[in-house]
Amino acid sequence: MISVIGYYTTQFGELWEKSLSDLIEEAINGVLKNTGLDKREIDAIFFSNMLAGVLENNLHTPSKIAEILGVNIPIFRVEAACASGGVAFHLAKIYLESKSSKTVVVVGAEKMTDYSPEETTSALASAASGEEQEAGLTFPGLYAMMANYYLQKYLCTEEDLAYVSYKNHYHGSLNDKAHFRKIISVEKVLNSPYVAYPLKVLDCCSTSDGASAVILTNNNTITKKSKRFVNLLASEVATDTISLKERKRLDEVLTTKIASDKAFVAGKVNRKKINVAELHDCFSIAEVIAMEDLGFWKKGEGGKLIKELSTMHGSNSELIINTSGGLKASGHPVGATGIKQIGEIYLQLTGQASNRQVKNAKYGLAHNVGGSGGTAVVTILGC
Amino acid sequence: MISVIGYYTTQFGELWEKSLSDLIEEAINGVLKNTGLDKREIDAIFFSNMLAGVLENNLHTPSKIAEILGVNIPIFRVEAACASGGVAFHLAKIYLESKSSKTVVVVGAEKMTDYSPEETTSALASAASGEEQEAGLTFPGLYAMMANYYLQKYLCTEEDLAYVSYKNHYHGSLNDKAHFRKIISVEKVLNSPYVAYPLKVLDCCSTSDGASAVILTNNNTITKKSKRFVNLLASEVATDTISLKERKRLDEVLTTKIASDKAFVAGKVNRKKINVAELHDCFSIAEVIAMEDLGFWKKGEGGKLIKELSTMHGSNSELIINTSGGLKASGHPVGATGIKQIGEIYLQLTGQASNRQVKNAKYGLAHNVGGSGGTAVVTILGC
Repeated sequence: MISVIGYYTTQFGELWEKSLSDLIEEAINGVLKNTGLDKREIDAIFFSNMLAGVLENNLHTPSKIAEILGVNIPIFRVEAACASGGVAFHLAKIYLESKSSKTVVVVGAEKMTDYSPEETTSALASAASGEEQEAGLTFPGLYAMMANYYLQKYLCTEEDLAYVSYKNHYHGSLNDKAHFRKIISVEKVLNSPYVAYPLKVLDCCSTSDGASAVILTNNNTITKKSKRFVNLLASEVATDTISLKERKRLDEVLTTKIASDKAFVAGKVNRKKINVAELHDCFSIAEVIAMEDLGFWKKGEGGKLIKELSTMHGSNSELIINTSGGLKASGHPVGATGIKQIGEIYLQLTGQASNRQVKNAKYGLAHNVGGSGGTAVVTILGC
Repeated sequence: MISVIGYYTTQFGELWEKSLSDLIEEAINGVLKNTGLDKREIDAIFFSNMLAGVLENNLHTPSKIAEILGVNIPIFRVEAACASGGVAFHLAKIYLESKSSKTVVVVGAEKMTDYSPEETTSALASAASGEEQEAGLTFPGLYAMMANYYLQKYLCTEEDLAYVSYKNHYHGSLNDKAHFRKIISVEKVLNSPYVAYPLKVLDCCSTSDGASAVILTNNNTITKKSKRFVNLLASEVATDTISLKERKRLDEVLTTKIASDKAFVAGKVNRKKINVAELHDCFSIAEVIAMEDLGFWKKGEGGKLIKELSTMHGSNSELIINTSGGLKASGHPVGATGIKQIGEIYLQLTGQASNRQVKNAKYGLAHNVGGSGGTAVVTILGC
């Protein structure tokens, strides 16, 4: 059995005083300290980062991490746009499945706020197709097309979507590592300026700096010594066309459906058993569509159901979504996000989520998406 | 047992009429055709590429490959600078070790010649440390420091190094996929202009476009159907400090030593049994140092031994090096190089290397390096 035995995340936010290396170092040393492990007990490191090459001409990060830590172990850099973290975690799982008694760090990091909005927006657009980039489309525009289609088809409103941001900002207010800790009202979301109709500023996640790390092991001695661990039940990756125009439907993300269907089977977990989930809410519409594609809600019902706020901390429902604040309020340092999602589930299942703890959380799911859905990773943890 | 059952490479060169996607598509379809497999028989794809993000704002390539092929399988992008191909192959091996009866494509590609030399040089420098970049160091400069140290310490000459280029260009003349197919003399190397003393233009590999792909399987039915397969005996990755100033020695690349020592043990192969090897000769000095670090030659003897040309095709020696032409003459489309190296060994061990075939080649090794040695991958194949 593979277990997640520890988690550390830096603050997410505008961390102008810290470099990418600083963030990576803090996250790795933090998770080593939290688990009481020495770096010499780590057999490999998986590192997720999307933008350092484009934004700061910084590639070949594995050897830079080796230099920071003073190690000679295998270190792998994985990139799948905003799904980089989930994919790195998936490959770390594969690594452990291929070997016995090994322990690995999975660390994700991104520096985004040292650059102009134009530079960051252009760099993020690298995850879209060349044709979409040439047409001037950026991700708010791509998700806006999905939102327009969805709202029209299912007779939903901008107000429905605003409840995603309202809920996730409330959760962010409970998370001291979140980029945004301010509670916002539905009215405030609706009154925020349009970025790409029908999506407004407060329907969109931010660019952020941050790094997050987890430790995975299949060394039973290390797991037993660890006071707080959860079992990794499943991790599945799917890919699809990146171009929206090549997709059969705009109201679903096929990769989420494929990856989650496979994950529920592989993990032998009924989706009804999931108590907490971190979904990839890069835009409000994305959480609604993901709830449906993951099978938690029926297709087309998300707009109505989100307004009931059953997925908000404090409700009596058995499924609470994005307790970290999601990408929306926790922030979205791209390479770190997929790791932070898994880390948040780890905190919930081990009772370490303090004022945002969901009671009796036994099973959790993390859902990490690349681009407009060209990649999706679904991870299931259980205790 | 994991086997390599097929290989395809595009032409290496200045391929201005082809995009990165074109090259990837040609390589994948080529290797599927060579093995008689259908894309539906492929369970995952590992893709290596270094520079598309920096040079053409092209990230999230897994979903772009999914779109080209019309598949929804897991596709992973791996980056470790010039070692990207070897590392992608290593992770593909790990993937197969974690599962039974699976078949994967490993494809590497790079587009480098559509950009100005300044753009490409700057992008390649992303594999060096930030401090080295800020000091104005590029890779010819970094390897020149290693060369100066080596030549002075072991009383070798620029002429000694020129024999690497002489040999590898001869090999390139035998490889119709090589970027440079012209035989050059030692004098021509010595008379070429300095790039960074003591390295001259003809001590340096080129920037090139190209894509290469291999298919790996642990599905015995597929292996048996394949007429030409070789066994994957070992693949090991090591990392080290990227900054030269942090290294204990400048006359060795520690990662090559660690990875090869582990690979010879894991593969249960004595290094004396290796008949053909593809070494990472990004600069002439790199092949000499690698011959020593791999244990084929004693430290400090490389300068004298290379002049004997025992490692050149046609010699009676039992170890021939860089029959593809190496990075020097075959060209160095970064993401493709590590795959082409393994592909060349596959061709040699299956008797498909035509006019550059090494007789009775039973064991082969590929050595792929990132940056100035911050990452090294050593792969051993046998038949």
